[in-house]
Amino acid sequence: MSNFLAEKYNYLVPYVPGEQPQDRKYIKLNTNESPFPPPESVKKAVEERVDTARLYSDPDSNNLRQLMAENYNVPIEYTVVSNGSDEIINLAFMAFADEKNPLVFPDITYGFYKVVADLNRIPYSSVPLGDDLSVCADDYVGINKTIVIANPNAPTGRYLELSQVEKIVASNPGNIVIIDEAYIDFGGESAVQLVKKYNNLIVIGTFSKSRSLAGARLGFAFAAPDIIADINKIRYSMNPYNVNCFTAAAGMAALKEKKYFDENCKTIKENRAFLETELKKNGFEVIPSKTNFLFAKTDAVGGKELYLRLKEKGILVRHFDTERIKDYNRITIGTVEQMRILTEKIREVLEEKNNEKC
Amino acid sequence: MSNFLAEKYNYLVPYVPGEQPQDRKYIKLNTNESPFPPPESVKKAVEERVDTARLYSDPDSNNLRQLMAENYNVPIEYTVVSNGSDEIINLAFMAFADEKNPLVFPDITYGFYKVVADLNRIPYSSVPLGDDLSVCADDYVGINKTIVIANPNAPTGRYLELSQVEKIVASNPGNIVIIDEAYIDFGGESAVQLVKKYNNLIVIGTFSKSRSLAGARLGFAFAAPDIIADINKIRYSMNPYNVNCFTAAAGMAALKEKKYFDENCKTIKENRAFLETELKKNGFEVIPSKTNFLFAKTDAVGGKELYLRLKEKGILVRHFDTERIKDYNRITIGTVEQMRILTEKIREVLEEKNNEKC
Repeated sequence: MSNFLAEKYNYLVPYVPGEQPQDRKYIKLNTNESPFPPPESVKKAVEERVDTARLYSDPDSNNLRQLMAENYNVPIEYTVVSNGSDEIINLAFMAFADEKNPLVFPDITYGFYKVVADLNRIPYSSVPLGDDLSVCADDYVGINKTIVIANPNAPTGRYLELSQVEKIVASNPGNIVIIDEAYIDFGGESAVQLVKKYNNLIVIGTFSKSRSLAGARLGFAFAAPDIIADINKIRYSMNPYNVNCFTAAAGMAALKEKKYFDENCKTIKENRAFLETELKKNGFEVIPSKTNFLFAKTDAVGGKELYLRLKEKGILVRHFDTERIKDYNRITIGTVEQMRILTEKIREVLEEKNNEKC
Repeated sequence: MSNFLAEKYNYLVPYVPGEQPQDRKYIKLNTNESPFPPPESVKKAVEERVDTARLYSDPDSNNLRQLMAENYNVPIEYTVVSNGSDEIINLAFMAFADEKNPLVFPDITYGFYKVVADLNRIPYSSVPLGDDLSVCADDYVGINKTIVIANPNAPTGRYLELSQVEKIVASNPGNIVIIDEAYIDFGGESAVQLVKKYNNLIVIGTFSKSRSLAGARLGFAFAAPDIIADINKIRYSMNPYNVNCFTAAAGMAALKEKKYFDENCKTIKENRAFLETELKKNGFEVIPSKTNFLFAKTDAVGGKELYLRLKEKGILVRHFDTERIKDYNRITIGTVEQMRILTEKIREVLEEKNNEKC
């Protein structure tokens, strides 16, 4: 830290992304990326965009938003796109939360929410998940705060039914409810259509998971036009050309490949079922997931130890030190081959542990 | 505006980017873009990056920063990259300016500074440019505020000698001095090497102008490692994966094409000299420029009127309504062919005006 940093940031603790080690090749199951590459059409679209990259990108991303609107069946005025969904989270928190409207989110959820709240000096509180690590809608009914819920939730993978989401939104007409649907394409039902009915709902999404474009950084949000206008007011005051031309081109090409991505999501769901069965066979407790990851633990080996032993064996999973979930690991669903290798390596760890006991 | 927007943003006036009209084809001389496309190697680099776009980009952009470090002859710890230089401006303002360290910048400069200061509720004041629209270093000596100077300045095009920049930096050891060098490659001498000597200096740059990549959104900054660490603290709390994989690939490829871009800058300087001569021949007063634009006015036609008449004739230039510079237009330097057409159209306007008087 320099002597120049504004005092208010002295105690800020930045977000820690999942590790991206360069020392060796791992089977990377730690940051919920898709195991499938983007389709050829994305390559073509991005390449073609280079010739005009000398020109600024469209600060309103109109072509991309038009296609988003068509794909999601909402008017274009209900859409905004961003440099990853993290950017939208920051913009929405800035716009709709302050001392008067503090934030509330589950105690176990995407760790970035807390960091962004701290950055913007927005007060926040958390609501504990149920014993089964589920979000209980009743905890948020009429809560009179700006609500943020990842649905399905991370790192648990648990999904809140759409009717329950609607209950939260409908019971808080004086407050913004943000539903972060990063993982919705792996089995949940999106709340997107509710933005036409409720003017206090923001639904956030990303191209990073189901659309194989984590590296492209493309996020989006749907909300009533007034809400979008507020977000744009902040966006135009912070970074007006926030989505670059290559990413916009990649996003548009990806939107036209619905079949390819639907197939991939189907495969992920199959591989998830496969891994869940294997983990259970090996004595793991697995949280039911509607995402591209599983959250699992076993009495046979501690969460951190399993993470470290798998890393030694060339597999990266994600472990969180947070007290309540320290026994678990979050495992990204990859190809079935990767799931087989993972299962094998887990079996090795369990055997090693067993031998050490003898 | 919705009923939900945090009160503190009620009076925020967002930045207004240069117009990007879709209604017809213009000769676009209004946003200081390069008239030259990126080289073929950029196309190849971006295309090749699609296959691994399913993975998150490197939040530290290490490969890109390493190449930046080599190209600019500074250690990698002195570098940070961003989603356009606007992002760095926001991060630096957040980190190094507040009530205790208010901002100061010239009264006529990049309009975005004021907006970002307002967004972050940072107090600011401005120092009037001299009568010739030049920045006077003595105005900033020992000023005891966080200083931001675009050098060369926009929209004037005027350049402050490196020795004068150093005088400002050296005389404000207790404050951060930000030098925004978006246009430095068109004839100025960069302050980059001074970051090794002064721990209070931040030098900002961009790939948008001289490197033909405005659409890619790639900005960067050089500063002492402590300062970079502070910027990263905020960056990791706001948008850790801020530079996407395509832009990083494009940036790296561009850095390897020094000769191509040097040639382009040379051509721009030649075309700038050509246009300056032509404008003067036609009775314009032209501010001496070290940028890829000229700032010019004539008594024969008002600034706004010239802008509007040129637009009718299919040429876009940039006009600012600000009282002090409302007689001027900022004209981006394009190809020599574009400069010839512009000159011709300006002559037409002057003739029309003359005929109207008769």
